[in-house]
Amino acid sequence: MSVNIVIDTLGGDNGAPAAVKGAVNGLQQNKDVKLILTGRKKELDQLLSEYTYDKDRLEVIDCAEEITCHDAPVEAIKTKKDSSLVVGLNLVKEGKADAFISAGSSGAVLAGGSLIIGRAKGVKRTPLAPLLPTTEGMKLLIDCGANVDAKPEVLVQFAKMGSIYMQNVMGIKKPRVAIVNIGTEEEKGNALVKETFPLLKACKSINFVGSIESREIPFGKADVILTEAFVGNVVLKLYEGLSKMILKEIKKAMMSTVKSKIGALMIKKSLKKTLSNFNASNKGGAPLLGLKHGLLVKVHGNSKDEEFSSAVLQCKNFVNTNVSGKIIEGLAEEGTVTE
Amino acid sequence: MSVNIVIDTLGGDNGAPAAVKGAVNGLQQNKDVKLILTGRKKELDQLLSEYTYDKDRLEVIDCAEEITCHDAPVEAIKTKKDSSLVVGLNLVKEGKADAFISAGSSGAVLAGGSLIIGRAKGVKRTPLAPLLPTTEGMKLLIDCGANVDAKPEVLVQFAKMGSIYMQNVMGIKKPRVAIVNIGTEEEKGNALVKETFPLLKACKSINFVGSIESREIPFGKADVILTEAFVGNVVLKLYEGLSKMILKEIKKAMMSTVKSKIGALMIKKSLKKTLSNFNASNKGGAPLLGLKHGLLVKVHGNSKDEEFSSAVLQCKNFVNTNVSGKIIEGLAEEGTVTE
Repeated sequence: MSVNIVIDTLGGDNGAPAAVKGAVNGLQQNKDVKLILTGRKKELDQLLSEYTYDKDRLEVIDCAEEITCHDAPVEAIKTKKDSSLVVGLNLVKEGKADAFISAGSSGAVLAGGSLIIGRAKGVKRTPLAPLLPTTEGMKLLIDCGANVDAKPEVLVQFAKMGSIYMQNVMGIKKPRVAIVNIGTEEEKGNALVKETFPLLKACKSINFVGSIESREIPFGKADVILTEAFVGNVVLKLYEGLSKMILKEIKKAMMSTVKSKIGALMIKKSLKKTLSNFNASNKGGAPLLGLKHGLLVKVHGNSKDEEFSSAVLQCKNFVNTNVSGKIIEGLAEEGTVTE
Repeated sequence: MSVNIVIDTLGGDNGAPAAVKGAVNGLQQNKDVKLILTGRKKELDQLLSEYTYDKDRLEVIDCAEEITCHDAPVEAIKTKKDSSLVVGLNLVKEGKADAFISAGSSGAVLAGGSLIIGRAKGVKRTPLAPLLPTTEGMKLLIDCGANVDAKPEVLVQFAKMGSIYMQNVMGIKKPRVAIVNIGTEEEKGNALVKETFPLLKACKSINFVGSIESREIPFGKADVILTEAFVGNVVLKLYEGLSKMILKEIKKAMMSTVKSKIGALMIKKSLKKTLSNFNASNKGGAPLLGLKHGLLVKVHGNSKDEEFSSAVLQCKNFVNTNVSGKIIEGLAEEGTVTE
């Protein structure tokens, strides 16, 4: 079965060139995929003319508008009807596409997911759930989206969605769910964590292992790292910033003397392998879970072509394993569907 | 003027040996310092017998009890009157010591600060404020203490205390204060940040520069990184865990082949210099700001002798520059002293 994926070519820091290159590579790497690019047709046709690709599997839809990070998200979704983002999401809504990839404004992408596609029945909030590199492989951080100050019952639902995701996409049998906390004792935490903790403990469909302190996150002590979106956002961005800073400083140290430069050349190959584990670009983007149908993947604002082509593969796998459907089923079985 | 400092030799992961070695080194490095060790006299005398030091400047006080991280903090402070922690804090309370250093349970150290020494007049909460290594030098993260779910006016006071600290201890003229947020636009954030933001903007005694996303923290984009304690704790511990993980992985990569091992030897010296910047052990501990008098410094639970001797120097400087007094003065001038 062919999977139809829309790529929003606007809104990312690297513009249409990165999206187009990523699209063409994604098309070549995945023979069972069809792509639709939304954006400025003239620019896209020109960029595409430089590549050889299967024209039957790539379509361009012209959009007159662009949503940027300066636009108020909800307002932009409601008014910029001919933007690459809104047009793309409507294709998913109408069932003309299975998945949507965007490097655009997080706020607008998240708002668009809720307003245009809509939440699945019974889903209280739609969390954004990126994978973090750890010494024990990629682990799911849920939520980093727009649901700041979430309620305890919302976090419990996120824990279930995250578990289903890790089971089906990453193949982990009984994913360990832990809540981000400032200590490992049950009585520790802020009001939200203290209220959520007993609910998680009582939840039979997840493998809740208690609290996780942030210092343990990089060592893979949990498969589903559960937290409210504000803290999740802080964790995600600090992961990114601190890795970047440390690697930059180490590189600087290696380039500081003639001797160290020679040494750097000798460890280059071994180091490159290690560093690729920290490179999120070959892992795709963060899916927005709990949508009514289809899939929405937010890739990093500064995504290069590699992120886009990885996201194409990610979407294909996601659609083929029917994770969205399994999340809806899983929540329904749980009796959490109350609407 | 001689500075009297108490060192709690119990409660840390490395026990009395680390504290004693750090104390002896601290004594040798700072001729104008007197130390009082609280703990098990028999053990301490035995450990001390292996060192040569100025006996007139070091006193041991025998304590029968120990507060561990398994004790409920407030309960422990109230009942374990003969613990090394309570005895030490009482020395500060009674004016017999100027400062107190402990690697013991954070909760108990923080509770002890408030319950035994007490908050200065007008101080709403006492924040724990460690320094974080960044590419632009050490920056203050405030608060990482016990005040989770803090109120906006409490955060504003923390911003003022942090500014006074960075001005007087780190010599920064107009410290840039930024609040940790999930975006840089003013309308972004959770309820607490949205409420606090305009109060910070209106505060004339600080140099408020707006929001800081966590990815910018390692690049020193603010001198005072303001946040509520839950998020502060997550930032601090992720800083620690992620640095450790990345350095461990890089070391592993360097040791993976014969060629990379030779390369590693050649870059060792340059790398060591860089890595020492990430090493918090030579920076002392985190002071608890806003106490009635005296100084309380919490060093890491797994502190080695180096942390203890750095904290001795830190306490001396802190007492000599009278930062505690300046914080009290600064807050009073501001008209925030309402009690």
